[in-house]
Amino acid sequence: MTQAFDSIRAIFWKEDGLYLLDQRKLPQEDVELHLTTAVAVAEAIRDMVVRGAPAIGITAAYGVVTSAIEHQTENFSSRRASILKDIKHLSESRPTAVNLFWALDKMKQCLESGQVTGDNLTQLLLTQAQKIHEEDIKANYKMGEYGASLLSDDAGAVLTHCNAGALATGGYGTALGVIRSAYGAGKIKQVFADETRPWMQGARLTAWEFVTENIPVTLLCEGAAASLMQQGKVSWIIVGSDRIAANGDVANKIGTYSLAILARHHGVKFMVAAPISTIDMKSATGADIPIEQRDASEVFGCGGARVATDGAQAWNPAFDVTPAELVDAIVTEKGIVENPTLEKMQLHMS
Amino acid sequence: MTQAFDSIRAIFWKEDGLYLLDQRKLPQEDVELHLTTAVAVAEAIRDMVVRGAPAIGITAAYGVVTSAIEHQTENFSSRRASILKDIKHLSESRPTAVNLFWALDKMKQCLESGQVTGDNLTQLLLTQAQKIHEEDIKANYKMGEYGASLLSDDAGAVLTHCNAGALATGGYGTALGVIRSAYGAGKIKQVFADETRPWMQGARLTAWEFVTENIPVTLLCEGAAASLMQQGKVSWIIVGSDRIAANGDVANKIGTYSLAILARHHGVKFMVAAPISTIDMKSATGADIPIEQRDASEVFGCGGARVATDGAQAWNPAFDVTPAELVDAIVTEKGIVENPTLEKMQLHMS
Repeated sequence: MTQAFDSIRAIFWKEDGLYLLDQRKLPQEDVELHLTTAVAVAEAIRDMVVRGAPAIGITAAYGVVTSAIEHQTENFSSRRASILKDIKHLSESRPTAVNLFWALDKMKQCLESGQVTGDNLTQLLLTQAQKIHEEDIKANYKMGEYGASLLSDDAGAVLTHCNAGALATGGYGTALGVIRSAYGAGKIKQVFADETRPWMQGARLTAWEFVTENIPVTLLCEGAAASLMQQGKVSWIIVGSDRIAANGDVANKIGTYSLAILARHHGVKFMVAAPISTIDMKSATGADIPIEQRDASEVFGCGGARVATDGAQAWNPAFDVTPAELVDAIVTEKGIVENPTLEKMQLHMS
Repeated sequence: MTQAFDSIRAIFWKEDGLYLLDQRKLPQEDVELHLTTAVAVAEAIRDMVVRGAPAIGITAAYGVVTSAIEHQTENFSSRRASILKDIKHLSESRPTAVNLFWALDKMKQCLESGQVTGDNLTQLLLTQAQKIHEEDIKANYKMGEYGASLLSDDAGAVLTHCNAGALATGGYGTALGVIRSAYGAGKIKQVFADETRPWMQGARLTAWEFVTENIPVTLLCEGAAASLMQQGKVSWIIVGSDRIAANGDVANKIGTYSLAILARHHGVKFMVAAPISTIDMKSATGADIPIEQRDASEVFGCGGARVATDGAQAWNPAFDVTPAELVDAIVTEKGIVENPTLEKMQLHMS
């Protein structure tokens, strides 16, 4: 199955290793990085060559394959130990997106399964990583259908935050997959995108995805989102997630929680689109989700330019937590959870 | 009367004309522009060499003085006509800050007063402009006292937006004057400042003011403000204003309305500090305040770097309107209006 508005991929496995579109350089430069070690893959995740919860999971899975190749001259038990060490290293690359740990768990299960031998190890791990990748894309197509079904035929325009698109996933996107499907169905005519400081994923990545596919996209600074809603310009906020707790609390890019409060204040609906692999039933509530604090330097500059005054401090959490009561719908490949609660999430996961 | 933490001035009248600290270049460069024509002054206001509602008013007043000098060889009636034309030109430099029109009205009254002759015209206009400037500083000292009195002794930390400081006024600042006074009184220990996209007035100007005066300041991206409040890190939001309507609706830098909603959601108090010259009783509500739309290019880049993808649109309102019901206190040099309404504003202005 393929979809309209589905022209972008950022993660490629080739015979000689993993290739990532360097998302730090987009849209100004179109650079592919070739990675052949798990250490390099972990560094690429940490340094945001690749970002977005599902994409981080897929990349880490391929990172395990690079590890298997890197250590192929070792004897079987030493090789497995080396790969397990690399899995641990990959798991420490970023703390918030649970898809990372989910994907690494899948790879570890594969590594530890009875089928594995020295001869088929690489192939089995590669097959597992490719399955994670392909299933992510399929999940996004399903989310696109479910999410778009929530929008009325005259939904008009929606607002998204950060980049939960093809670049943040195996392809098509979670929140942007819903938007692509809704645009394809004629339900929306225009997308508004928060520029999303400090990394500018909206201005650089989301806008690039939509411009690439000729979907009309209008950028705004985060501070303007309240006015946008005050003026009735959008009917839905649609975002992705890095981790969803068992009770439906949603961790996502810093600024998401703000949008959820503003949406509720203005009677705008708030949708979170994320695959099942983003749901962490072991985190009872958002309070259990570790929030990555990133370096102050990200706030001090922008696009390579130093902007802030010397001598100031900066507070730079990469994510925030939106309480479930502000979420109108969580959309996964399994369907829709409206007004999420623990009970509804448990039912959805069962 | 002078105050602690009052070391910064951005507007200077000297014998040979007006000098402005170029706020587009701060904090990286410390450049003073020398202006000798009203056209140049209007351009400086439009291009944001100087910004902040009270500072725009003061600058425009001095702009009328430059006009008087520029046209001093003309006969008296032709000279007055030239100055009136320049006043009109200055009034068209920016639309939202009402202090601009207020100050130009004062200058026009002076120009049209019976006392004026060809010999004393420049001196009378200069005296009027200097009076506007000096009274603005005095008003800020009063606001500082009134505003700080609203904070408890253990207010801890506050959050401000944009720059309503010494640079935005004749000196000391409105919102930052309140913060300076509260810090001087030991009521607050730390200031959080929104970086304030797209012009980064928080990162560049507010942070620079506080660093200059050794007041601890921590920057954050606008998207992080909701988390800051969720974590109980601030007790008050304190901002300035570009125009306050008769009913207490407040126009201020884009992003202010968002903070007001977030503050109410989290039980954080919201204060607006502005001189009487910011109150426009002719605007019945915020709906009557013209909101300047600025060029999309401001959103596409930052600090001189192009960031956004080509082909996207941008929505870039410079200001927003916060409804009076979200405002806990308006503070002027005349005192405090809590939970503003038309009746309270009329009483305050009488």
